[in-house]
Amino acid sequence: MSPKHNRLFKLCQKFNNYYLKILYNGLDALPFVVEGQQVGLIKENVRSVLLLKYPEVFCLRDFHDTKKQPVIELNPAFRDYTERTEQLDKILRELRETNLFPALQGWREEYYDVKSDQKSLLKMDRSATSIFGVRKYGIDINGYVRHPKLGLCLWQQQRSNTKETWPGKWDSLVSGGLSVGYGIFETAMKEAAEEASIPNNLLKNMISAGSVSFFFESENGLFPNTEYVFDLELPIDFIPQNSDGEVQAFELLPAEECLEKIFTNDFKTTSCPVVIDFLIRHGFITPENESNFTKIVELLHVPLQSLF
Amino acid sequence: MSPKHNRLFKLCQKFNNYYLKILYNGLDALPFVVEGQQVGLIKENVRSVLLLKYPEVFCLRDFHDTKKQPVIELNPAFRDYTERTEQLDKILRELRETNLFPALQGWREEYYDVKSDQKSLLKMDRSATSIFGVRKYGIDINGYVRHPKLGLCLWQQQRSNTKETWPGKWDSLVSGGLSVGYGIFETAMKEAAEEASIPNNLLKNMISAGSVSFFFESENGLFPNTEYVFDLELPIDFIPQNSDGEVQAFELLPAEECLEKIFTNDFKTTSCPVVIDFLIRHGFITPENESNFTKIVELLHVPLQSLF
Repeated sequence: MSPKHNRLFKLCQKFNNYYLKILYNGLDALPFVVEGQQVGLIKENVRSVLLLKYPEVFCLRDFHDTKKQPVIELNPAFRDYTERTEQLDKILRELRETNLFPALQGWREEYYDVKSDQKSLLKMDRSATSIFGVRKYGIDINGYVRHPKLGLCLWQQQRSNTKETWPGKWDSLVSGGLSVGYGIFETAMKEAAEEASIPNNLLKNMISAGSVSFFFESENGLFPNTEYVFDLELPIDFIPQNSDGEVQAFELLPAEECLEKIFTNDFKTTSCPVVIDFLIRHGFITPENESNFTKIVELLHVPLQSLF
Repeated sequence: MSPKHNRLFKLCQKFNNYYLKILYNGLDALPFVVEGQQVGLIKENVRSVLLLKYPEVFCLRDFHDTKKQPVIELNPAFRDYTERTEQLDKILRELRETNLFPALQGWREEYYDVKSDQKSLLKMDRSATSIFGVRKYGIDINGYVRHPKLGLCLWQQQRSNTKETWPGKWDSLVSGGLSVGYGIFETAMKEAAEEASIPNNLLKNMISAGSVSFFFESENGLFPNTEYVFDLELPIDFIPQNSDGEVQAFELLPAEECLEKIFTNDFKTTSCPVVIDFLIRHGFITPENESNFTKIVELLHVPLQSLF
């Protein structure tokens, strides 16, 4: 058996390290509850800081009389979306000045809506979502070329060295998180223009192609992420150009080389599922050439929506 | 909110009725163990018959001293693949003469390999796999046409009224279960020729496009099924023809009408996930037109591989 045999499966385990931890060892985090609804998961290291420093904002609800697990609740006295947002924002800005949560060093001044079902409960800076284990959504565009000589090729971008998260790492041609006030397709169009200067006449060929979901944990916290994926076939003579300073290079790679690249440390871990999903949907990774095929497909779509 | 609002989500719940039962109520079946390895799940109604009628073949192992749940074990005295297969085959043929298990009325004389990881432990008739809750694998070919007037269209087949399972129901253009001795791609090629007379010059365009997994329960037992999906773009003038008597009609339908059809009782329930997955991958069902998009994508890829 070749040493390469299990590497795709191992990569899927890497970006699902927290999903697999829950699956095999049970949950080591407590539900984060806002207005009676679970919206996230809080780990012990975060919990101890929040409860100690901000007892007027967070409380531990311990259900002594039942077998229910305790939860961390945002003070239910906060009346509405605005008050919850303001109270949380204030303490997050304070915490940002400390070194307690490295995730906050990636502060973006971009708000992320925290919802229960369809109802918005509050918004917080996108950098803070991993501290509270809130499900996060983003878009990824697979920009590809059917090259007459090289076959199926994928465009990739190298993230700027000055980016707060994953600086200098290779990534999908276009990607971005959903922020308050922007729709899914709208975010894809906006990021395509900003990150890669893709003109509208090419963007009209963009096709919604599904989503991937995975649950990753790093020193920055918990990432129960869902990425909406879009495929965009590009003409062979199109060269992407960055407009917003967040990309330092682009490269067009044959599918085989893309696959090799995601196994290196040069590729953003949380963008690997998007590339793998693309290579599966386009017949490059198949049940004939990949013995863990069904396990891999399942690990690209882990059940985040039924976690809470 | 339109009455159609949740129907796709409800359909995903329908073919995942057993997955959701486990998720929310816990498991109501015992592990089926062969040579120390779990290979399936056995429900109470099956268990009582097997243990009472065939105590020399099946035994209940109750771990009195631990918190482990009991398991149903195939007699470990059976030495090898051949002996296990013969012993099981004998009693299944006996049971087929009774009305105890309706699934056995669909007896096929087609063997299905029961494996643990990569090792084959025994084979049983394909009709019996649902009695033992053994994971089953099949192939589906989405035969589609890009019609100049009608847009994206899908070919569907109507199963023969004389088929043992789902007679008269509409289904993917080509589908079939994996049997002992046939590979995945090989099964797809074989079924494409038998069921729809697709010539090799068209089949060379067939693309592996992933897999769907779901866990359905019916009066015939448990169906933890994985379908390897293939996409095949067909020329507008190709008309499929059946060669094996298992299909009574073919029809080419625009995507919109396909979607309507899977909501009727005329469509084979366990083929719906394949159609939904196709319509998602090809940009017909999108996060913009389907509010349960991410839930649906997850319910098309439920984690069967980590069940046991």
